[in-house]
Amino acid sequence: MSHRVVSLPNWTWDSEQASDEYLTWHAAARRDCAREIVQMTHLAGSGHPGGSLSSIDMYLVIYAHAKLDAKNPWADDRDRVVVSHGHTSPGVYSALARIGYFSAEEAVLSFRRTSNVFEGHIEREVPGVEWTTGNLGQGLSAASGMALGLRLNGHDSQVYVPMGDGEQQKGQISEARRFIRKFGLNNVTALVDRNRLQIGGDTDEIMPQDLTAGWASDGWVVQEIDGHDPSAIYAALRRAVHDKENPHVIIANTVMGKGISFMEDKAHYHGVAANAEEYARAAEESEDDPALWNLAPLRAAIEAGVPKTVPDLPASWPEFATGTPRTYEAGTKSDNRGAFGNAMLDVAQANARDGFTPLAAFDCDLEGSVKLGAFHKEFPNHFFQSGIQEHHTAACAGALSTCGIGTVFADFGVFGICETYNQHRLSDINHSHLKLVCTHIGLDVGEDGKTHQCIDYVGVLRNIFGMHIVVPADPNQTDRAFRYMMTQPGMWFLGMGRSKLPIVTAEDGSPFFAGDYEFVPGRGDWIRRGSAATVVVMGTLTGRAVEAVDALRASGLDVGIAHLATPDTIDREFLDELAATKKLITVEDHSVRTGLGECLASALFAAGHAMPHLRLGAADYCPSGNAESVFASQGLDVAGIEKSVREFAG
Amino acid sequence: MSHRVVSLPNWTWDSEQASDEYLTWHAAARRDCAREIVQMTHLAGSGHPGGSLSSIDMYLVIYAHAKLDAKNPWADDRDRVVVSHGHTSPGVYSALARIGYFSAEEAVLSFRRTSNVFEGHIEREVPGVEWTTGNLGQGLSAASGMALGLRLNGHDSQVYVPMGDGEQQKGQISEARRFIRKFGLNNVTALVDRNRLQIGGDTDEIMPQDLTAGWASDGWVVQEIDGHDPSAIYAALRRAVHDKENPHVIIANTVMGKGISFMEDKAHYHGVAANAEEYARAAEESEDDPALWNLAPLRAAIEAGVPKTVPDLPASWPEFATGTPRTYEAGTKSDNRGAFGNAMLDVAQANARDGFTPLAAFDCDLEGSVKLGAFHKEFPNHFFQSGIQEHHTAACAGALSTCGIGTVFADFGVFGICETYNQHRLSDINHSHLKLVCTHIGLDVGEDGKTHQCIDYVGVLRNIFGMHIVVPADPNQTDRAFRYMMTQPGMWFLGMGRSKLPIVTAEDGSPFFAGDYEFVPGRGDWIRRGSAATVVVMGTLTGRAVEAVDALRASGLDVGIAHLATPDTIDREFLDELAATKKLITVEDHSVRTGLGECLASALFAAGHAMPHLRLGAADYCPSGNAESVFASQGLDVAGIEKSVREFAG
Repeated sequence: MSHRVVSLPNWTWDSEQASDEYLTWHAAARRDCAREIVQMTHLAGSGHPGGSLSSIDMYLVIYAHAKLDAKNPWADDRDRVVVSHGHTSPGVYSALARIGYFSAEEAVLSFRRTSNVFEGHIEREVPGVEWTTGNLGQGLSAASGMALGLRLNGHDSQVYVPMGDGEQQKGQISEARRFIRKFGLNNVTALVDRNRLQIGGDTDEIMPQDLTAGWASDGWVVQEIDGHDPSAIYAALRRAVHDKENPHVIIANTVMGKGISFMEDKAHYHGVAANAEEYARAAEESEDDPALWNLAPLRAAIEAGVPKTVPDLPASWPEFATGTPRTYEAGTKSDNRGAFGNAMLDVAQANARDGFTPLAAFDCDLEGSVKLGAFHKEFPNHFFQSGIQEHHTAACAGALSTCGIGTVFADFGVFGICETYNQHRLSDINHSHLKLVCTHIGLDVGEDGKTHQCIDYVGVLRNIFGMHIVVPADPNQTDRAFRYMMTQPGMWFLGMGRSKLPIVTAEDGSPFFAGDYEFVPGRGDWIRRGSAATVVVMGTLTGRAVEAVDALRASGLDVGIAHLATPDTIDREFLDELAATKKLITVEDHSVRTGLGECLASALFAAGHAMPHLRLGAADYCPSGNAESVFASQGLDVAGIEKSVREFAG
Repeated sequence: MSHRVVSLPNWTWDSEQASDEYLTWHAAARRDCAREIVQMTHLAGSGHPGGSLSSIDMYLVIYAHAKLDAKNPWADDRDRVVVSHGHTSPGVYSALARIGYFSAEEAVLSFRRTSNVFEGHIEREVPGVEWTTGNLGQGLSAASGMALGLRLNGHDSQVYVPMGDGEQQKGQISEARRFIRKFGLNNVTALVDRNRLQIGGDTDEIMPQDLTAGWASDGWVVQEIDGHDPSAIYAALRRAVHDKENPHVIIANTVMGKGISFMEDKAHYHGVAANAEEYARAAEESEDDPALWNLAPLRAAIEAGVPKTVPDLPASWPEFATGTPRTYEAGTKSDNRGAFGNAMLDVAQANARDGFTPLAAFDCDLEGSVKLGAFHKEFPNHFFQSGIQEHHTAACAGALSTCGIGTVFADFGVFGICETYNQHRLSDINHSHLKLVCTHIGLDVGEDGKTHQCIDYVGVLRNIFGMHIVVPADPNQTDRAFRYMMTQPGMWFLGMGRSKLPIVTAEDGSPFFAGDYEFVPGRGDWIRRGSAATVVVMGTLTGRAVEAVDALRASGLDVGIAHLATPDTIDREFLDELAATKKLITVEDHSVRTGLGECLASALFAAGHAMPHLRLGAADYCPSGNAESVFASQGLDVAGIEKSVREFAG
């Protein structure tokens, strides 16, 4: 095994050609990397040697010349290397080991073992890895988010994005290309490992594609090189780095499995490790000291246990001032999304200095509807109009949120949730702090009809382990919930409908969610207390449910009503209070199968409670009409709620 | 109001130029359509007049010349018109009314009202509408699925796909372009309504894009025309239809709001209806009989109630023979995905005649892993290798499944579920019959790590109202469940892990899911009965759970075990049987928060039961390692299950 490289010359992109010193180092480093790639996949019995060996020359040139410091792997102003084809992890790990990020031994011995962070696909927990990839087509989007972060934070650094050629088939890449071009993120350089093979064989047979024409059509400068010639890789990267006017893509013609004779140009080795016989052959063919290929000491070391020595990924969420809450007065009507827009501006202003604010917002051509106009106007350099490109936008925003920028992605529910679920899942795996703000959720979207009805926002998002779901009742709670979540690390969701809503009031007529009210996740908000039954409501329908409950109370039925803004996080105290009443009715502008009713039923069962429960909500996709008529069609208007509660609890 | 057009001349693409007769008709029809577009949006108080008026000339030329019969709207061999920018519904409805699909009155009076099918975005329930769109970027994918259906069913028909120019920003469109080119679906013609405006303004400012270069880069012939000149539209379409070698895209330069002076070239009217003053001005400017603009009779008719007279969408699922179930013998180990591959081939063969089978399968570069190889080899024309283009593939497959072809989309869980949730949601809204088959679900994916762990397949898919979820225990149940679902209309999901599994046996040692066993959704499979507690398991972990339970039983603890393949569909009888035992332990290769445990807890609560419940499953994203070590890290190996059950129930 080779040992940790403690220091390297300070190679840069200054000289016109790759230096002789570098080329000598490269040749030796490549031999070490090739051996380690074969070794770690063989020891794991799985993994991706083929693409690792076709990408490795690029990895070495990039990592050796980029502005990186193995002693300070998370320096704010570092260059970013975002490897999009994350299955080339053996190549990435061996290259990072060469430049001193960790010992090659640790990576080789821990690869694909639960005891360490050297996963089958690269992940952010490994120092030097900027983004957990493996789901293809995501890297360029994430890289563009980091490029925005560098710009906002005032760093003149580069972003390198090695990609596979198979993944070029993903449409999201074209969205990212356009975004990068539009925003002049010319410090981004993409490199395509053009080995012409994917799992199923020849890329031209699997899905014919003209890569040059495709990238050029989106305004990128295309360079084509021999991807195994370090001088050519250097020259192309140097040209890209020095071109401040255009983003470049370097299409690097390579050979899968390069350097291991029997693997060369074989699709089989995309995802298959050398077996024992093949390993022996690779060892024999190599020019290394044969001792370096000896498996016995490696196996013994694994058996003895390999301690994790790489440092933990540092947290990255700064503190934000949140300004003074606004109060929307009783008797008025206002939309939650407007309250969000106001609070967003307030928070941005509260943290602003010299026209800079540590916030950013992304929009997909719905600026007016999602109420980002005021923020856009006051902080134009912090607003990113991304067009109808939700997949890219979600991933880009997730990445920016890891750069110390409070990042909001605002969109309609169907686009910001249903269409982009996987991007958010990947952002969560990447320890993102994205604040996902969705308007037009629920049947409240009204006339736009079935395709635009996001009635699964709780049911879908709660599958993301780190996602905190908040669905506020009215503008006052929206205001306080948004300010609260901006103080919190991790991913948070703020869900709102479209319509203007009444301000929820306490029995004394004062605004319920103002004054002393404090937003606390998990807490049920008791708007009225009653003994015969409790209505628990979430979000848009709160005003209607309160009106129905007040009518029932006036008619002598002692029904209480509580609001729960965090359906997936519920205090034990609230559950016990609910169980102390006789019957439960949940009311939600959501599928009855997977939302508030489901969460409460499950939580009550877990707490050992049993009680009659009626779920009111959407039982299927619903028709198109104004919100009131759509609600009425589902028995979710005031009269419908009142009738159902009376029949169930009366 | 104009009346239903009962018959039109049989216009075709034969003549070199649009006929004078047609052009005369077009001019009159356009005036009627423009009025109705303004009228229906004004009456609804919302909707999208701008794009309707920029697309309307194209709609009229297409609908008038396509092979369509208003008396037989769902004829198998009809041409398909798939409008991708579904918000232009006023234009689509008014054009369809012109060619006799329904009365214009019904559409105008019912637009965006819950009482009828004329939704804010077009939907399949409207005769003449082929696909419910509105979520942008989906139409070309759906159209390609229909083109495959026409080919498989032996029809020489055309597929026309009008699209918006804003939606060109969606990356999925590039995936569809490549798919269509690869499979030579040259009967597909796309048309882009190039009005240069989207909600937020100028498309070139929102997201600069070279449409011509983009489409050409994927091998399409690009024609550019004046989109308001019916002669030019005719000529371009004729050229496209007669070119059997290439797919064409027609970039039609248009003006938003064309024909209504104050709406022309104003982004505002993308999604805003004329107000009263504007309506009066439009009426005044028109050359129509003023009586046609009189709102009073229209309002009176709405008030009186407008009956739905359009026919219901017919069902379209044929009967399939399912062959003879295979039995995998006790004591052997085999993977569920292999059993799926065998059953798929069996069903295809059972329905084959002369090399044709009414089945199709889609793959995204994972053919070997998802076990489609045998089917591909025997039915090469029914296997579609779609590359790493999951968004397109899911939508395309959903559309093909509505063409009388039993369609399977097979993929890894993270791609076939997490990445494509919205496409499946839209397929379900479109009454698709897609059979979604996912392998490599759960932590069983092993070394591939976090990004590849699909541990949310139940939690995500159960949000789709029409989706039937099936997660079989072993190869025998896989075989029977797959054959069963091929006899069923609607969307079905078959979820499987990666590993080889033991055959589940009854206490007498015979294969449990063979012999007399019949797959029945909702039924719990009692593998062992016991009184102290019941373990309910789903899918991959069944063998491990049975082994743990057998060990506990041998040690004197009377624990039972049941398998539930349909976590979201549970018989009342099974719930009552569970409640009759003392304690419940659920075991699943899934997030503990949203899978089997959640479904059972909720169902038991709804049934009025309370009982102690321990959920075993994945509590977070998990590390990379071989499946056994990953399971062990979560206490889901045999020893871990045994220990947890003993502590909880012992």
